[in-house]
Amino acid sequence: MTGTPAPFTVDDYRARMERAARAAAEAGLAGVLVAPGPDLVWLTGYAPPAATERLTLLVLAAGRDPVLVVPTLEAPDAEKAVGAPALTLRDWTDGKNPYAVTAPLLDASGLAHRLKGDSGAPIGVSDNTWALHLLGLQKELPGTSYVSLTDGLPMLRAVKDAAELDRLAAAGAAADDTYEEILKVAFAGRRESDVAGDLADLLRRFGHEQVDFTVVGSGPNGADPHHEAGSRVIEHGDTVVLDFGGLKYGYGSDTSRTVHVGEPTAEEQRVHDIVRAAQQAAFEAVRPGAACQDIDRAARALITEAGYGDRFIHRTGHGIGVTTHEPPYMIEGEEQPLVPGMCFSVEPGIYLPGRFGVRVEDIVTVTEDGGRRLNDTSREMAVVN
Amino acid sequence: MTGTPAPFTVDDYRARMERAARAAAEAGLAGVLVAPGPDLVWLTGYAPPAATERLTLLVLAAGRDPVLVVPTLEAPDAEKAVGAPALTLRDWTDGKNPYAVTAPLLDASGLAHRLKGDSGAPIGVSDNTWALHLLGLQKELPGTSYVSLTDGLPMLRAVKDAAELDRLAAAGAAADDTYEEILKVAFAGRRESDVAGDLADLLRRFGHEQVDFTVVGSGPNGADPHHEAGSRVIEHGDTVVLDFGGLKYGYGSDTSRTVHVGEPTAEEQRVHDIVRAAQQAAFEAVRPGAACQDIDRAARALITEAGYGDRFIHRTGHGIGVTTHEPPYMIEGEEQPLVPGMCFSVEPGIYLPGRFGVRVEDIVTVTEDGGRRLNDTSREMAVVN
Repeated sequence: MTGTPAPFTVDDYRARMERAARAAAEAGLAGVLVAPGPDLVWLTGYAPPAATERLTLLVLAAGRDPVLVVPTLEAPDAEKAVGAPALTLRDWTDGKNPYAVTAPLLDASGLAHRLKGDSGAPIGVSDNTWALHLLGLQKELPGTSYVSLTDGLPMLRAVKDAAELDRLAAAGAAADDTYEEILKVAFAGRRESDVAGDLADLLRRFGHEQVDFTVVGSGPNGADPHHEAGSRVIEHGDTVVLDFGGLKYGYGSDTSRTVHVGEPTAEEQRVHDIVRAAQQAAFEAVRPGAACQDIDRAARALITEAGYGDRFIHRTGHGIGVTTHEPPYMIEGEEQPLVPGMCFSVEPGIYLPGRFGVRVEDIVTVTEDGGRRLNDTSREMAVVN
Repeated sequence: MTGTPAPFTVDDYRARMERAARAAAEAGLAGVLVAPGPDLVWLTGYAPPAATERLTLLVLAAGRDPVLVVPTLEAPDAEKAVGAPALTLRDWTDGKNPYAVTAPLLDASGLAHRLKGDSGAPIGVSDNTWALHLLGLQKELPGTSYVSLTDGLPMLRAVKDAAELDRLAAAGAAADDTYEEILKVAFAGRRESDVAGDLADLLRRFGHEQVDFTVVGSGPNGADPHHEAGSRVIEHGDTVVLDFGGLKYGYGSDTSRTVHVGEPTAEEQRVHDIVRAAQQAAFEAVRPGAACQDIDRAARALITEAGYGDRFIHRTGHGIGVTTHEPPYMIEGEEQPLVPGMCFSVEPGIYLPGRFGVRVEDIVTVTEDGGRRLNDTSREMAVVN
């Protein structure tokens, strides 16, 4: 893709809402409730400034028109969303009980009815819906049951279409450009937070509208996989884990490389070689029909054989799309088969407490006959200054 | 207060956790579960980079030591929180069921036991806990019941102590300084978003570490109370609603003033006079023992008498503390009596669709015998250029 992608249209959002309602019915759900967050953005293009105590909720069910419940004072914003013409707004005013406003929507459609009794189908709820709102609905409609979308409809956003893949590829290319540039900056003598600032500036320079994380884990801090970046001054001889990403054109990047300030020791090089080989093995396991857990197993087997199994303390990967963390998850027990168009991270690591860490990560998409990396800079351990 | 306030200590957080557990027991709750967000920050000082699909949950109950359930790979961060020495960390690793890890904590304490059966007390859950996590607990511990903290323990953070009041006063003073400076910039011929950028810069210059909103609603956009700031070019003759705030020293500011580009018309002046009088009437109703709804009634009565009752389309105010929106809410039906130390906004408005809006807002704290404004710039409609 070159240039800015064409914006999603009301037809795109209408198709997504219809697909979601259909998929919910096929999955045995009575419908889907979606609060502000990535699912709502993906389904409608609507992103209120914040999720708050005021209920905003999209109600989807097969054979019904979508309805968006919104606070009256946010209705003018909701009307401006690209997907708004494909749904009906139902507003409620401060002081009213918004769950009582929502309940008849479910009842009228027969949703709540279908939910009750022995054969009641549960209704899917977006993962990040506030407990405040779920409890409000549970109280208003006793006897209904709910499941999270991760449990009930985990693959809703997992398979990306061509327009989405273009955006993810653009985000990945920008992350690659960022990595090539960060190799040129000074590491030794600067704080982790300084290098993190460089990463954020570069991601923005290469077109990210949002920076989600800029991990710079130097020396012992690299052994904490979720260490962000602190005041530690990077020294000559440090191994440094870099893990950065955000959103470009609304879709995510997420890549990790581990660099070394000056020449690595034999042990540091060996640990890096193991992680790199594990990342390659996991990448090569990607193909339609393989289970998510197979990707984790491929990486973990190699690291375990090398004697570091107990130092690989996280899953091998996670999906990516309009968020930088979403289903499917590459982890033991996840039997979901891979499907062309799925996009996820492959990011094994080894963490030696008090000493250093190594992680290598690319975003990979499932093709018709294997996998394709959306990040593709060198995975060798680069030497920086 | 002058200078930077002393940071909160582990003793502060320990006292808050003990207070919360005691208040929960007194409110008939079996305990309190707190996910990442403002409640967790207030109780422990711990703020993970983001709320995610990985469960982090603080478990509080009277007579027990607090336990924080955290993902293994975030445990090193949690250990660094100022409040960490006052609690026990219980970590869980990717691939494990975190709700199964949490359940015995409740069972061992007798919490879940107390929850079951006829006399089961509900457990309080922080409002913004993800539905994913609440549903996980409901599935793991069938028969338990839950209420949101807004329903079950709304006043947990509502009464501020002296150290908190100092911070809120500092944030309010910075918002006042911001307002005085914004009166000096050019309005006519610039986009709303440009003035919003000035507001954000000023809030930061006056010490805010976080800017939450910078509403610039010019002309007809002012009639949408939650309009943020757009590309509309402000014109001579516009009425402009300004509403801005964020966090300074971790505590919130939130103030609104309505200005006019050039001299207002008689009607614009009259509407502004009504809102200003309503704001004053609501402020004067603030005193210990008054109900929250009395504050709303005081403002609404005046606006209704003036014939604009149906154009005042939101509640009169909301609490403020470590967030810029929290209980108590100043709205009809909220009978909670005011207590010295409570802090909330008083912000009536009138919105004339397609024409203009007016809002005047201060943060007010309840004193022993009335109310005290934490914002105190002129409430007259200023004329800007």
